[in-house]
Amino acid sequence: MKLTNDKRVLIVGLGLIGGSYAKALVKKGYHVSAITRSDSSITYALENGIISEGSTSVDPKLVGEADIVVLALYPQVLLDWIRDNQQYLKSGAVITDVTGVKCCVVYDVQKLLRKDVEFIAAHPMAGKEVYGVENSDDAIFRKANYIVTPTEANTKEAVALCEALGWELGFARVSVLTPEKHDDMIGFLSQLTHCIAVSLMNCNDTPGMEAYTGDSFRDLTRIARINDKMWSELFMCNREMLLHHMDAFSDAFATFRQMLADGDVEGMRDAMRKSTVRRALFDKK
Amino acid sequence: MKLTNDKRVLIVGLGLIGGSYAKALVKKGYHVSAITRSDSSITYALENGIISEGSTSVDPKLVGEADIVVLALYPQVLLDWIRDNQQYLKSGAVITDVTGVKCCVVYDVQKLLRKDVEFIAAHPMAGKEVYGVENSDDAIFRKANYIVTPTEANTKEAVALCEALGWELGFARVSVLTPEKHDDMIGFLSQLTHCIAVSLMNCNDTPGMEAYTGDSFRDLTRIARINDKMWSELFMCNREMLLHHMDAFSDAFATFRQMLADGDVEGMRDAMRKSTVRRALFDKK
Repeated sequence: MKLTNDKRVLIVGLGLIGGSYAKALVKKGYHVSAITRSDSSITYALENGIISEGSTSVDPKLVGEADIVVLALYPQVLLDWIRDNQQYLKSGAVITDVTGVKCCVVYDVQKLLRKDVEFIAAHPMAGKEVYGVENSDDAIFRKANYIVTPTEANTKEAVALCEALGWELGFARVSVLTPEKHDDMIGFLSQLTHCIAVSLMNCNDTPGMEAYTGDSFRDLTRIARINDKMWSELFMCNREMLLHHMDAFSDAFATFRQMLADGDVEGMRDAMRKSTVRRALFDKK
Repeated sequence: MKLTNDKRVLIVGLGLIGGSYAKALVKKGYHVSAITRSDSSITYALENGIISEGSTSVDPKLVGEADIVVLALYPQVLLDWIRDNQQYLKSGAVITDVTGVKCCVVYDVQKLLRKDVEFIAAHPMAGKEVYGVENSDDAIFRKANYIVTPTEANTKEAVALCEALGWELGFARVSVLTPEKHDDMIGFLSQLTHCIAVSLMNCNDTPGMEAYTGDSFRDLTRIARINDKMWSELFMCNREMLLHHMDAFSDAFATFRQMLADGDVEGMRDAMRKSTVRRALFDKK
């Protein structure tokens, strides 16, 4: 299957990300439908032209008509959805997801799935600190990365289709990584940073500090505002990798603490010079 | 002395902050002069109307004419400057500073200083990741806090003058704190965050990750680009307080790590809910 806008796309789970997918694809002329639990989300999406059809329960007709199904669900719910509803999928359909960890999803789904349809995993690295289709906005994709994470079970065609979907959604960069490399990287770049932000936010309850907060504390704790259900599930899915990165960070932090305790100014300055050089690599181009 | 724009202001140390002070005050009609080591900084500031007079060495005439002297210097250099040059100060002059830690500066300066002039410490909580008068910009003050940190040796008049200076510079908020409370708060809100950013930046050297970086990692490491000379000196000046905050953070981080290792999902979710509620306090109003 090639990605052309005569394909019918079904979004399952119409929240911030699912809604943003729908908005981007409708603008490109796709027929987009949605299945999501919340009645108000469907009503809002229909009234605002974000979808053409929608249902609050699994509608076999909507599922059966879709060429591409985007599962914007939490990992465990996603597996359950496949188990319960894969019989409705059209033969030849391509299913993708938006989950923030891949190893714990992709292998189980591919093992479970009918052989006449294909699951190709992807991670749109975009988000906001607000939720729901009402806050959806495809502009969040414009400076962001879209990562396709195929396994050996995937066909070249499905990988290419999924990459094309990333471009069609308006991402700045589309990459292909193994699920393992993806989870290693995301454990460091995203999950570890959330663990740090939560711990920093919780380690000092002195009242009134908000009056004196500068940008640095705000920057480091922006993501301490966190969806506890989703992130705890994502952390558990990537536990060993995340523990590894947490330990590496703890070691670096403890080393720096010891230099300060010892009055090792040159050691601290070395660490700062190293971080300064290394941070320059991460500037937005 | 009341703050009126017929007062002559001398900036000692014409870098990013000193230059931004000069720009803000010149706009308000003050006569601003500067002493700084770099010839090119003086030339740039004169050519761009940021100062009216300048010198690359301590000019007794410039010092003696100033009603208000702003020492935009590192802590140790600041003490040396007072020791070497206080004989040139006009009787009745008010001296202030911009140092990011206060206890290690204010008491020593006040002990050392002539009794017919007054030192009132202040911390403009503003900055950028670039340096020098060429990058100075008084817009950095507009959403920022200015904190006056008087001791028992200060007069009410000098505190009021220094508060007025904060408003005149264009800060969004001007507060008064003891040096001790200031250093406690800054140890947590600013110094700890820089220690975290440097450690996070240095704890993983895997090449190529910048291609996949989202906003959260960029936010947490923005301040890992750091002036090593200045910050190591500020850390050493506030060592005990900073070690205390580093240990509190390490404990919170280790607790979270243990919950993840134990699969204590409810514990992690509790921590995330707590951080979410607490972070809302720190939103910009």
